[in-house]
Formats: sequence, structure tokens, C-alpha cells
Amino acid sequence: MSDTSPNLPSATLELACQLIARRSVTPDDDGCQALMMERLAAIGFQCVRLQFGEVENFWAVRGDAGPILCFAGHTDVVPTGPEANWQLAPFEPQIVDGMLCGRGAADMKGSLAAMVTACERFVAAHPNHDGRIAYLITSDEEGPAVNGTVKVVEWLEQQNEKITWCVVGEPSSTNTVGDVIKNGRRGSLGAELTVKGVQGHVAYPHLAKNPIHLAAPALAELAAEKWDDGNDFFPATSFQISNINGGTGATNVIPGALDVVFNFRFSTELTAEDLKTRTVAILDKHGLDYEIKWNLSGQPFLTAEGPLVEAAQQAIKEVTGTATVLSTAGGTSDGRFIAPTGAQVVELGPVNATIHKVDERISAADLDTLSEMYEGILKKLLS
Amino acid sequence: MSDTSPNLPSATLELACQLIARRSVTPDDDGCQALMMERLAAIGFQCVRLQFGEVENFWAVRGDAGPILCFAGHTDVVPTGPEANWQLAPFEPQIVDGMLCGRGAADMKGSLAAMVTACERFVAAHPNHDGRIAYLITSDEEGPAVNGTVKVVEWLEQQNEKITWCVVGEPSSTNTVGDVIKNGRRGSLGAELTVKGVQGHVAYPHLAKNPIHLAAPALAELAAEKWDDGNDFFPATSFQISNINGGTGATNVIPGALDVVFNFRFSTELTAEDLKTRTVAILDKHGLDYEIKWNLSGQPFLTAEGPLVEAAQQAIKEVTGTATVLSTAGGTSDGRFIAPTGAQVVELGPVNATIHKVDERISAADLDTLSEMYEGILKKLLS
Ligand SMILES: [Zn+2]
Ligand SMILES: [Zn+2]
Repeated sequence: MSDTSPNLPSATLELACQLIARRSVTPDDDGCQALMMERLAAIGFQCVRLQFGEVENFWAVRGDAGPILCFAGHTDVVPTGPEANWQLAPFEPQIVDGMLCGRGAADMKGSLAAMVTACERFVAAHPNHDGRIAYLITSDEEGPAVNGTVKVVEWLEQQNEKITWCVVGEPSSTNTVGDVIKNGRRGSLGAELTVKGVQGHVAYPHLAKNPIHLAAPALAELAAEKWDDGNDFFPATSFQISNINGGTGATNVIPGALDVVFNFRFSTELTAEDLKTRTVAILDKHGLDYEIKWNLSGQPFLTAEGPLVEAAQQAIKEVTGTATVLSTAGGTSDGRFIAPTGAQVVELGPVNATIHKVDERISAADLDTLSEMYEGILKKLLS
Repeated sequence: MSDTSPNLPSATLELACQLIARRSVTPDDDGCQALMMERLAAIGFQCVRLQFGEVENFWAVRGDAGPILCFAGHTDVVPTGPEANWQLAPFEPQIVDGMLCGRGAADMKGSLAAMVTACERFVAAHPNHDGRIAYLITSDEEGPAVNGTVKVVEWLEQQNEKITWCVVGEPSSTNTVGDVIKNGRRGSLGAELTVKGVQGHVAYPHLAKNPIHLAAPALAELAAEKWDDGNDFFPATSFQISNINGGTGATNVIPGALDVVFNFRFSTELTAEDLKTRTVAILDKHGLDYEIKWNLSGQPFLTAEGPLVEAAQQAIKEVTGTATVLSTAGGTSDGRFIAPTGAQVVELGPVNATIHKVDERISAADLDTLSEMYEGILKKLLS
């Protein structure tokens, strides 16, 4: 096979390069999905374009009945920042010293290519596989995530379709491909807090109420609070203030309000409601006059065990000998929208060291390895 | 005298209107000082223009020897903001319902006019008065205060001139003219504090150090600290945070640094060095990594008693029957630069309710009253 010749790029690398060459910064898809659908249609997938707002999405399925093994991913990439800061042009993929370089190489055009070629090989060998293979692809994962996976999941519910197993192509690996898979994610609860005071002149503090002074002990207590101890699958719930702003810029004016933005990443040991109740109790204890706006961007989810986790662990073991580690650490992914439908969800993708950075790159060889892992999962669950 | 006819403005009001009509927003003098010098030269003052940088100042003196009673003031005014927000054009002075309206009416063109007409009457009655009368006038009081009174005081030192008694024309009164005079001011010590952390993603707090979390308990302690109890002349020293800013704007990033701006208004019970030492001790106790930049904008000063305070109290009593209150409350004034030379300093001016606001205005009758009070002080000290 020319695929494995050291002098020619593999089919996976070739497709990855074709995807990277398309400038699909959120929510612009720039033809990535059309290319994927063309490849999938050629091997018997039924593809449905699902545009919501300005966001392109598609659902593709192969097979008539039985459990669905769905690959979930995104064609959009984060902005490059000034391209002059890149060693190589971010949308002109190249393989340099064995590394595939370009925006999206790791997050997640490499994964998309690896799964497409895995399916091509699997379908060639098992044209009448068990169950169904599916793709849920969005171009809005890196953006507001409003008209992407959420809407496709709603559409699937209307069709009475249910995903059984879901592999999310997010770059889960730390040092070598497959060393970590994510079998859950913490919940994410954000808040915008405004603490109200009374504006005044620093020379007349008795006529003012300084919201920074009033809030400081409450913020100190929130930062010191132990929310839970985590559990076998989740680290302890964490609270972080990301932004704090108060003051007019003038050095002699006591501001009238203080704005604080904070975020919880929380385990399955407590609920978003628990966190809200406890936060409000601390703010009230300090007698603050405040407004708070909550934003629950994801419930925690967990696929503790089951056929999907086992298939992924075994496939990785067979391809590289790696005993993969299950983890729920790290940021959110669109898995948060799929897990609540009852699907088992794991995230398996390449090494995430350079995602969202300049000079994004991954080992070219890893992409072929990842494609074999995906193929192994297909075999274990659908043949 | 036509001055006191109810249908014609007094000489003081007329001069105040002429000054208000000049758009002397800091540091632009717009001819105010030339007008004053013309009036003063006409009654025997020797006037010296002292321009430093773009700031106009003047020193004027009448008499050859003996103690100097100096009137200190400023011709500059603070900006008006959008003039559409004013009921009347801010630089077109009018007397409406007995109120003189316009930018600077209270702070402090009214005082300037009141002192000039007081001198005109006093000199007419006492052409060979004791000692010397002087004016120290700047157009940089409301601005950076770098090329104004500070520089004139340095120049006076070079001339070996020493102010004995100084009346500052700042609007000291609260409800009725003369009800409060300021016989001192608190010190003002500012600081810019930067607390350093380590930037990171909210999903990986163990890789970051949140400077907001680290600083919150220290800020709470600084805000709760009792710095002193004040004394007979000064309220307790106060600490106020005027500005706090941390965060990139992104809700998922732990910021790398937190910026805090705060200010002490302090009594004569402690020194700026004491405050620095105690602040640093609290920051260090909390193990913070920080940088701090101090800005001492004024030492506290006090004229507890003496001929000037007595003359002012008696003059007020004689004109309106008011038992004036001595106070050191409120913001800083250029008195902070004159007091360290050894001068006795009091501030006496009109009601300060509308200073620095839209629709600045004072009672027109109060200006004539104020002029009589200034004349009374001149009589008591120099005749
Ligand atoms: Zn991604
Ligand atoms: Zn003033």
C-alpha cells in the first residue's frame, strides 16, 4: 500500500491536509463538511446537512437498524492570531520533521481524517457490519455552541434517533496518542456578580459605600471554600474568579459597583443548584447588596464503564500496547450535550499540547495510529 | 452706593461674572490672571507673572516689609462635561433667583472676586496698612498641580520670602457662608499595587495561581484595619480602594495579575512611612508576590490656633454672627504646599455643594458677605 510508504503521505494525512487547507474559523466551514460528506457518501453513508443560523452541521449514518456508534466532532478551528507569529502558514499544512503542522492539526481535523479513513477500511472489510455508524459534525464547537451540537441533538430527538455509543474526536492524549481517554467531564457553571455600593469621593468615605471593601471578605471566603472532595472519577469541585473590575480609573473616586465573573468546574458529587445555594448563602452572610446572573454551560457527565469504554481501552492496547488512563479532567466538550441523551461517551484523539496555540502540530505517525484505534473500536462494537 | 442697590450687581459679583466668562479650564488661564493683576496694580500691588511649563501663575504683593497675609487661589476650573447637560451655559454667568450660576462660581472665581474687592475697600481705607498683602494665584490647582503652587512656593524660597498667614479661597462652607473653615487637611498617600499570579485555564487551576484569590483576604484585612483613632482635629485615617482590575475578559482564563489602586487620607497621628510599613506587613503576612508604587500627594497639615484662626473666626462672627466650625475634613488643597513653609493656613470660601458638578452655583448675596469677611481679616491682621 502506498499509504504506508515513508515517502508518501498516508490517506489519513492526505485528508487531514485537505481539511487544514480550508480556513474554517468558527463558524465558517469553508467546505470541510462537503469534503467529508463526499467521502462518506462514497462508502454508503446517508448524509443530512443541518444548517442552523449561520452554522453548518451534518448527520451521516450507515446501516439500517441497531445500535449507533457515532463519531462526534467539529470542523471549525479557533482563530490563528497574527499569522506572522506562526513559523509556517497556518492554513498551508506541511509535514516537517515528522510533525503535521497547521491550525486544526490537533483540534480536530486530524481526528476527522483518522475516522473517515478508519470507516473506509472498516466498510471495505465489513460492508454488512452490525448496527449503524454515524457522524455528528458541527462547525460551532469553538464558538458560542448554540447552533451546533445542541441543535443536532434536538433534531435527532425529533427523529426518534438515539446514539448508543459516542466517540468524540477531541485531543484527549497527553504524551502519546491514546495514553488518556476522557470518559466524562466536569460540569461548568459560570456567574456574573455585581456587588452594589454607593459612589463617592475618597475624601468623604462616610458618604459612600465601597463595594470592593464590602465584597473582599466574601470573595476570600468563596475562594477558600471546600465545595466537595471529588470522587473516584472527578477531582474536587473548583471555584475560580476569572475577572474582577471596579473603579472609574480616577484615583479619588470610590466606585459605585464591583463586577466579578467566576466559574465552577464541578463533579458529580453536587449539582449546579447546590453551588448556587451555597454561593448565595456566603454572599448573603456578608450582607452584600448584589445581582447575580448564572450561566450553566454544562452538567457533569460520566461513562464510568461499559462496552464503549472497554472497546476503546482494548483497541488502544492492541494498536500501541498502551494501558490507557481514564480521565475527567480538563475543559468542556460537546460530549456534554450528547451524554444527557443516555449515550455512552468517550473522547479519544491526538496529543493536545499545541491546541489553540500558534504553531499547532501533531506527530504525523500518530494520526495513522489514531485511525487504527478508531478502526479497532468499530470492529469491536459493530462486527 | 450703586454696589448695594438690589437692581445692580455689586462690584464683587461684576468681577466674578467677568472671571466666569473666561473659559479657564485647567491649565488654560484665558486672561483671568491679567484681569486680576490689572485690578491689583491699580491699587498699588506689585505683580510678578510666573509661568512654569504651560501654567500661568502670579505673585502680587502690596507693602514693603512686615508679616505677609497671602490669599492663595486658582483661576482654573474643572471641565464642564457636555454643556448640553447644563441648564445655563457654563461660561455665560447669570444671576437667577439670587444664585450666581456658572462654572467656577463656587470653586473659586467667586472667592477671587471677593478678595479683590475686599482689598480695594481695605486699601482705600488704609493706604498705609501694616505688613504686606499678597496673592499667590495659579491656573493648575485642578490639574496635575506640578507647575502651579509648588513652583511658586519654591520661587518664594529663592526670594527669601515667607508667607506668615495664608487664606486659601477654597469653598469651605457647608450650608451658609462661613459656617466652616478648614484649618488643616489630612495627608493623602496613594498606591498602585500589582499582585502577581500565574495565568492559566480555569479547567486546570492546579497549573495556575489566581492572584484575585490570593489577594482577596489581604484586601479584606486592609479594608478592615483600624489605622488610628484620629485626634481632636482629624478624623480617623481612612483607607479606600478606588480601582481593582484583573482578568482578560475571557470567562475561562485565570488572570496572571491583579491591579489594585488605593488611597489613604491620614491624620497627624501617623506618618506616610507608618502607613507604608503596616500595609507591606499585611501584604507579606498573606504571602503575596507583588509590586507596589507609592505616591505621597500631600502630608497632613494643621493650624491648630493662632492669630489667623482667631482673625477669621472673629471676622465671620462680626459679619454674620456665625460661630464658625474648624474642620480638617474633605479633599486636599494647595494649602498642603504652603503649610510646610511654616505659614499658618486657613481655608475660607463659599458653600461647596455644587463644586465640580453641572449647574455649579452659589448665592449671589454670599459673595458680598464673603468679601466682608475677607476685609475683616485684613483689618484684624494688618491695621
Ligand atoms: Zn476541539
Ligand atoms: Zn478649588
